[in-house]
Amino acid sequence: MTKISRALASASRDARHFALANCIRALAMDGVEAAKSGHPGAPMGMADAATVLWTRHLKFDPSCPDWPDRDRFVLSNGHASMMLYALLHLTGFEDMTLDQLKAFRQWGSITAGHPEYGHAAGVEITTGPLGQGLAGAVGMAMAERSLAAAFGADLVDHRTWVFCGDGCLMEGISQEAISLAGHLRLEKLTVLYDDNGISIDGSTDKAFTEDVGKRFEAAGWHVIACDGHDPDALDKAMRAAKAETGRPTLIRMKTVIGLGAPNRANHESAHGAPLGPDERALARAALSLDGEDFVLPETALAEWQILGGRGAAARKDWQDRLAAAPADMRAEFLRRQRGEMPEALAPTVAQARAALFDVPQAVATRKASQIALTTLAEAVPEIIGGSADLTHSNLTRVPAVDSDFQPGQPGGRYVSYGVREFGMAAAMNGMAAHGGIIPYGGAFLIFSDYARNAIRMAALMQLGTIFVMTHDSIGLGEDGPTHQPVEHLASLRAIPGLSVFRPADAVETLECWELAIRSRKAPSLLALSRQAVPQLREAGPDNLSARGAYILRSHGTGRDVTLLATGTEVSLAVQAAERLHEQGIAATVVSMPSWERFDAQPADYRADVLGDAPRIAVEAASRFGWTRYVASEDDVIGLDGFGASAPADVLYQKFGITEAAIVARARLLHDNRTSS
Amino acid sequence: MTKISRALASASRDARHFALANCIRALAMDGVEAAKSGHPGAPMGMADAATVLWTRHLKFDPSCPDWPDRDRFVLSNGHASMMLYALLHLTGFEDMTLDQLKAFRQWGSITAGHPEYGHAAGVEITTGPLGQGLAGAVGMAMAERSLAAAFGADLVDHRTWVFCGDGCLMEGISQEAISLAGHLRLEKLTVLYDDNGISIDGSTDKAFTEDVGKRFEAAGWHVIACDGHDPDALDKAMRAAKAETGRPTLIRMKTVIGLGAPNRANHESAHGAPLGPDERALARAALSLDGEDFVLPETALAEWQILGGRGAAARKDWQDRLAAAPADMRAEFLRRQRGEMPEALAPTVAQARAALFDVPQAVATRKASQIALTTLAEAVPEIIGGSADLTHSNLTRVPAVDSDFQPGQPGGRYVSYGVREFGMAAAMNGMAAHGGIIPYGGAFLIFSDYARNAIRMAALMQLGTIFVMTHDSIGLGEDGPTHQPVEHLASLRAIPGLSVFRPADAVETLECWELAIRSRKAPSLLALSRQAVPQLREAGPDNLSARGAYILRSHGTGRDVTLLATGTEVSLAVQAAERLHEQGIAATVVSMPSWERFDAQPADYRADVLGDAPRIAVEAASRFGWTRYVASEDDVIGLDGFGASAPADVLYQKFGITEAAIVARARLLHDNRTSS
Repeated sequence: MTKISRALASASRDARHFALANCIRALAMDGVEAAKSGHPGAPMGMADAATVLWTRHLKFDPSCPDWPDRDRFVLSNGHASMMLYALLHLTGFEDMTLDQLKAFRQWGSITAGHPEYGHAAGVEITTGPLGQGLAGAVGMAMAERSLAAAFGADLVDHRTWVFCGDGCLMEGISQEAISLAGHLRLEKLTVLYDDNGISIDGSTDKAFTEDVGKRFEAAGWHVIACDGHDPDALDKAMRAAKAETGRPTLIRMKTVIGLGAPNRANHESAHGAPLGPDERALARAALSLDGEDFVLPETALAEWQILGGRGAAARKDWQDRLAAAPADMRAEFLRRQRGEMPEALAPTVAQARAALFDVPQAVATRKASQIALTTLAEAVPEIIGGSADLTHSNLTRVPAVDSDFQPGQPGGRYVSYGVREFGMAAAMNGMAAHGGIIPYGGAFLIFSDYARNAIRMAALMQLGTIFVMTHDSIGLGEDGPTHQPVEHLASLRAIPGLSVFRPADAVETLECWELAIRSRKAPSLLALSRQAVPQLREAGPDNLSARGAYILRSHGTGRDVTLLATGTEVSLAVQAAERLHEQGIAATVVSMPSWERFDAQPADYRADVLGDAPRIAVEAASRFGWTRYVASEDDVIGLDGFGASAPADVLYQKFGITEAAIVARARLLHDNRTSS
Repeated sequence: MTKISRALASASRDARHFALANCIRALAMDGVEAAKSGHPGAPMGMADAATVLWTRHLKFDPSCPDWPDRDRFVLSNGHASMMLYALLHLTGFEDMTLDQLKAFRQWGSITAGHPEYGHAAGVEITTGPLGQGLAGAVGMAMAERSLAAAFGADLVDHRTWVFCGDGCLMEGISQEAISLAGHLRLEKLTVLYDDNGISIDGSTDKAFTEDVGKRFEAAGWHVIACDGHDPDALDKAMRAAKAETGRPTLIRMKTVIGLGAPNRANHESAHGAPLGPDERALARAALSLDGEDFVLPETALAEWQILGGRGAAARKDWQDRLAAAPADMRAEFLRRQRGEMPEALAPTVAQARAALFDVPQAVATRKASQIALTTLAEAVPEIIGGSADLTHSNLTRVPAVDSDFQPGQPGGRYVSYGVREFGMAAAMNGMAAHGGIIPYGGAFLIFSDYARNAIRMAALMQLGTIFVMTHDSIGLGEDGPTHQPVEHLASLRAIPGLSVFRPADAVETLECWELAIRSRKAPSLLALSRQAVPQLREAGPDNLSARGAYILRSHGTGRDVTLLATGTEVSLAVQAAERLHEQGIAATVVSMPSWERFDAQPADYRADVLGDAPRIAVEAASRFGWTRYVASEDDVIGLDGFGASAPADVLYQKFGITEAAIVARARLLHDNRTSS
């Protein structure tokens, strides 16, 4: 018996199961064929496992897709999207109509090439960039544990199920996620590994010969191997996963990619292209399917609908429990689910502002961040902090979160993510997508590179993840160019939908933190300094950072020159403006903590702030991008290349980011203008 | 006996060894103290292993640091830089003077905070961003195997030794590297893991509790555990590593961070800050060191010098073997080592150009890349290709490299890197740093995010790594926004020293490939399309892409408007220019395959190309950064947000990247100008 015929025998042993699973196979084939692109192989290979999971184990209710205590289902190998869409359709998610399946991968449909969070109900997280679904699922399981500690098992007691493929496990982020999940003993997390031995370039023997089960065991996981087409074996494995305590579970399912397609099964040609009409006809015959495209057997369809209703009772029970919960707990639970801010936030911010105006803080903005967080994290209990092993550098641990989130300590509010920036960022996205949690995590700004695609994914998903990135320029000094961000501000500003904040002092840092916490539908990244800055802001009630940029200082009457600056360079611009004023040149200093917020302001506000006078930008970073606001890169007091290893003040001098350079450029622009 | 006293007992059992190792400890303490910053803990903990390796096993000759057949030493935990500098000084590398050690982390010294390739002889690769040293070492071991296959063991037979810490192994890239190395059975690769149980945030128990040995075994490694302070145990382990065939070796060394510092050893406070004068004095006493800072016992110093000369004879033997090698082999070996191009390259390029002008190719630029590579890889035998499991999409496999680099096939020229973009990029950097190899590797442009810091490191190290990134815009279509690069061109252009090429047609693609291959001191990234483009260029001998941008088409007399475009949008600009010409507006089309190269041209050339007329930029990507060349982002026909899942032509229409949009904007600018 060949591998394929063995698999078919397993899948078809139980006729009822086979009929259900083949609905997924048929829709995957038909959807991809209609789209003329897509990935039929993985859905066809995983259809048996998906059927067993969704009809016997997954806790969900299509009539209430947002039920907070539903199990989370993550398709980490997101290219198998048609499997998920098929499942949503078959089990009765209202928005996943047959027309949507027919419009797979077309403009305006909710059935994108890869599952996109926010498009269709039941898509828990956007997947496609491999490995990140798995890491996001780790975050979801962490969120569940944290919320269960806060609200009890009556309200929070659900599991996270992940499908993943070889690609996910080859990506390094999977190891970060696996290692963290094993360390945290996330027993309600189950990964179903579609071990089909085929990747895009052919047999995985070409590049991926490790012992995956042993690797998971080394990370503290419970590992089960099973026939990925045998419904009884799959059911048994999922039961074992649910019975396991103290360890997450890997179910290593031996599968055949494209099972059902007689000539393409077990071959890379089944992976990423339509089967074509002939092969599809043969597959339909092999799977006892007949009829037109997108037409499925009535009995199977009816059974899917019934099975889709399997969770409604549990959901109603849960709603009864919620109704019976103490009123304040219920209110708090629902507030968090809605992503609304606690009432305490506004007065807390006001108090913290007042404290800064009473006793100004001349500190590094990372220290200012610590000061801000100290009160904000107290006021917002859903905040869960952490760092990628740089707690004492990022200053991310404050009293309110000074409790470890560790095995046996589910109520802890601080996560030791380890040196795993990418895994941390993706896990935070999972927490944010889960709901009920506001995650922040610290790293050096330079290592935003490691986490970059997860930062992008937060923006694409419109999640309120908060990235706390310290040591934000050559100002970090001696560690040298490997650790000095130069192009990072530009490259992060280029990510659509991400708010990059670079506050100038303790007041702006508080303001930016408030904005980040309130921003529940867009991620925020705070770029914070290692080195100290004076407090520049004077008393006033308004969060000026909310406008992205504002006039911080004006000297003299009129405006001869405008100095745009961010972060640690704002105080430098202020000094330069004073020198210029002494020299009879009226310089206005604009502090610009967030380009994105500034660009979203009304045109007249932007025009007022930018003014008509020549403009100079000052930022200890690449000049790249600043020509959005200044006439030429020559008007940017910034860097052209990498930094160097030396004390920070030496570097500022050597790279010419100095008061003298600002003054000289301002004089030149002013003189040119006056003489023209 | 405590962990610390046990370790000290091991380290001091052999007085001669202890005296040698303590020279490293002393210099690390003193260097960090003088710099007032740095990392004494890791050098002090690894000093015993480093001493055994450098005095008994590592093959090197300080009098000839670039000896091609030397062993490669990689300090993946680069923050332990003082250990490496101490070793270079002690063994007699001429440029590593005591003054350099005293100038640790100061402007202009060769002793940067983290080891930087190109600064000091003996620094084989820049390290600091964790995990990348290990991945680079995998590339070095691959390069060695490849060159040994080409030139034989007489000329190429060396090992790669890596030190790494917990941080390296927590980073996901380490798993990519480990898995690939195990798969490839890189038996000459040995990793010495500084298992000290301490990371920056404290005990690794907080976040890193996996069984590291088992994880390596799962990846096919030979694993040895040993006391990291016992010289005999270390020596035995290194011998075992050298004796092993068929598997790379992990030596898991149980160590004590900061060994010798009585109050800070085995504590995170030893990691990243000077010990301070009191603790240092106590440490000096504990290590039987006396005298002033930077002063070491004469006998130990003398012995280090002798041991540093240990490899000179082997090096001379090797030189004799080189001299005795067949003349053509010797010449070829030396040519490759010098990074010079083979003579065949120029005529091959000329021929390939002629072929394109004879039979124009209207193909996707990824296909054009395949055409170019087909001849170029034939002419340049040191090219080693590969892909991160996207060979058929990247079109990176051409006949000249159509042989697998696999265990037992060391002469293969194509690497199946697996779905490991970051590991691939870092390994390629290792190959390039090793010398004798020109590596290229393919991925989707979107996943440059995953590899980003390695791309940056290639630029920082000035290595000629070539990144082949296809599916370079929304033009990839249905896979959707998770797979559509938008901000990537901008964010890559922001990396100093990286040449980003986005060729417009088959001719430019050939030109850019030639430039990338010839660029041996700077990395190149080719952004290539999924979708077809016409061939735009007419016959001519010059590589116009070498100037970064050039006038491709002029219509009418004079210039009313200039259209700047890259890649697939150049043909769109050409069409728009024709429409404008019909409407009486003279449009000049500038093709701009590389900003970096264009910006390096003389001012008059740049002025000629850019012209005085209003300028419009056309690129199916974020507008970010284009204001370097155009007046406002409104003059960029580009994107503001993410892409979407739909056929490419639909996306271009929906996002307004169309001939009509270019024409409309050009008319507006032209009319404004005429009326003003």
